[in-house]
Amino acid sequence: MEVYLDNAATTKPAEEVVDVMVKSLKEMYGNPSSLHRKGVEVEREIKKVRKLVAKALGCNEKEVIFTSGGTEANNLAIRGLVKAHSRKGNHLITSKIEHKSVLSLLQQLEEEGFEVTYLDVDEKGFISLEKLEKAVKENTILVSVMHVNNEVGSVQPIKEITKIVRQKNPNTRIHIDGVQSFGKIKYFVKDLEIDSLSISAHKFHGPKGIGALYLRNSVRMIPLLVGGGQELELRAGTENVPGIFGLGEAVRLLLEEQDKKINEIKNLKKHLLRRLREKLEDIYIATEEDDQYAPHIINVSLKGVRSEIMLHSLESDGIYISSGSACSSKKRGYSHVLEAMGMRESHIDSAIRISLSHTNTVEEIDYAVDSIKRHLNSLRKIIRR
Amino acid sequence: MEVYLDNAATTKPAEEVVDVMVKSLKEMYGNPSSLHRKGVEVEREIKKVRKLVAKALGCNEKEVIFTSGGTEANNLAIRGLVKAHSRKGNHLITSKIEHKSVLSLLQQLEEEGFEVTYLDVDEKGFISLEKLEKAVKENTILVSVMHVNNEVGSVQPIKEITKIVRQKNPNTRIHIDGVQSFGKIKYFVKDLEIDSLSISAHKFHGPKGIGALYLRNSVRMIPLLVGGGQELELRAGTENVPGIFGLGEAVRLLLEEQDKKINEIKNLKKHLLRRLREKLEDIYIATEEDDQYAPHIINVSLKGVRSEIMLHSLESDGIYISSGSACSSKKRGYSHVLEAMGMRESHIDSAIRISLSHTNTVEEIDYAVDSIKRHLNSLRKIIRR
Repeated sequence: MEVYLDNAATTKPAEEVVDVMVKSLKEMYGNPSSLHRKGVEVEREIKKVRKLVAKALGCNEKEVIFTSGGTEANNLAIRGLVKAHSRKGNHLITSKIEHKSVLSLLQQLEEEGFEVTYLDVDEKGFISLEKLEKAVKENTILVSVMHVNNEVGSVQPIKEITKIVRQKNPNTRIHIDGVQSFGKIKYFVKDLEIDSLSISAHKFHGPKGIGALYLRNSVRMIPLLVGGGQELELRAGTENVPGIFGLGEAVRLLLEEQDKKINEIKNLKKHLLRRLREKLEDIYIATEEDDQYAPHIINVSLKGVRSEIMLHSLESDGIYISSGSACSSKKRGYSHVLEAMGMRESHIDSAIRISLSHTNTVEEIDYAVDSIKRHLNSLRKIIRR
Repeated sequence: MEVYLDNAATTKPAEEVVDVMVKSLKEMYGNPSSLHRKGVEVEREIKKVRKLVAKALGCNEKEVIFTSGGTEANNLAIRGLVKAHSRKGNHLITSKIEHKSVLSLLQQLEEEGFEVTYLDVDEKGFISLEKLEKAVKENTILVSVMHVNNEVGSVQPIKEITKIVRQKNPNTRIHIDGVQSFGKIKYFVKDLEIDSLSISAHKFHGPKGIGALYLRNSVRMIPLLVGGGQELELRAGTENVPGIFGLGEAVRLLLEEQDKKINEIKNLKKHLLRRLREKLEDIYIATEEDDQYAPHIINVSLKGVRSEIMLHSLESDGIYISSGSACSSKKRGYSHVLEAMGMRESHIDSAIRISLSHTNTVEEIDYAVDSIKRHLNSLRKIIRR
């Protein structure tokens, strides 16, 4: 039995996604910039996808920029907004539990002379709105916060965050890393009143190598890649047509019975949490059941067993989970997220992340929990000896 | 009959390329950064592709960085090298016939305070080596030149260029835009003695959305995208696995009987040039037959008929060609390349680009030339009336 429970790292592309990509590769291979039919027909399809993504995000199609993925979308938004607004100030705000594509970039900007405030999070994985309010200054040009944390699933209250920031400084730009929230939580960017938000197709059964950035219409941003003027002059380069087609199909599937799919994931999470609590002893679950946490991410510490040992033990049973964040390249053992949450070292060392998709089943969850239990028992025995 | 003669804009992905991409989407969907088998197996395949690309380029596998395409590779190299070496000077050199992804970026750098020398080209599309030598100064940190021009096919003598630059200033970095040369001309980057070179998969029957940058081992470069530390910390973001697989397969096919394929294109070009000269009157061919020009690009002016009119006329016969460069977004009529070559306006206005692949046939060429002749005759009659 193969049970893939690492859906926050990446998901399996849907059959329909593969089909439209094959279609683009075999039939619609023209360059969208070409003036002839072979180009025009592709350009038209891209426009359709852009409309669909805009519909899913709740924005105008001119506010959607295709990128090579979440990392580029985050880098483009943050560097592009900072560059465009650097005359208004040099202070940036983020949290300590951001994805590396945000944290590394802010550290780079710090080295370049910007002042960066890294907001603490509490033991549950949330920033303090009071501290945020205090942090926003007259020279604050950007606040960048992730919507759903990729390791523990905590959902930051974006609406309240934007309200506080806008009240304190209406000129501050607000970027949201929506890579883990898009499709898992229902929202429209217009309601969130943010300036930009990034998504990545391979997190919701689309292909790797493609993502998108929502950028509010009136907001100025300096492009990261310049050249042929594609993507409304905001992101040059011949369009990744198979990627865009795949992203579009993944979004279409997402919008199909979205409530039902989200509910399925929620029920799987509820079931998983119940089973973990029933069957295992000496565990610490960092993720709670309520809507303050995303439905697909569960972080659990299995006291006494290092997470990598458990990961490879489960692998031998065909079960795939993650230790910490799989998006950063194999820096073993270290989780800046759990550390920022003040988790004790023994919990950090033994934390595993189980992440769900609506394609998972109750049987798979049961199989996984049984496997964890079996390995936990034998590994704990060995270690205690 | 459908005759695709716009292969410098983009090519049709090979069947084998589509197959490996489907395999990656359906089976090898793990995140290469994941510690479990689903990730490790993908990482291993990426390593194989990197080795293959390195072999094709004539470099070490650690000198290959996967990017989202040619534009990103050019942007990454130029901005990254300039940023890393800006303490040594602020002078940059390029030519007036570069691709927009190079020209736009250099114009941006100019606005940021760098001094840029844009080298003229002669009426055949070549820079002057004497002028280049004069242009290199003590504070020149970068020379960026394209190998094969995308509109007329002129091949700059890279070895001589590097020799001259290195003699004048050994600290100057040399970036080559190899997007139109890779696969069409045989070379190894080590022999060219350059610091970096960019390639793009969709120019040689690979997919759109993926490319690579060769970066010489010892050369410092500041990354454009930061985050999870992928690509040896030089290009962050979850790898575009289907794209990388597709690029790899396209390179594998390229290496297979490369001489034969290049010869086929050369013969097609010879045949096309002969037919154009035999069958058409009042034309101006900017591309010559010898090895100073790439085998796949032919630029021909059809006096009296605006290129877009001819493009759409041919389209009605199922023939796809280009007016100017299809890589930049529909800025009609204007070719900075032909202008820099000092071509007269009537020639620029009526210039079409025919670009070949080894998959084209003599029959296709004959069909295209016949169609051009027919349209040319009737259009010229209408215009003269």
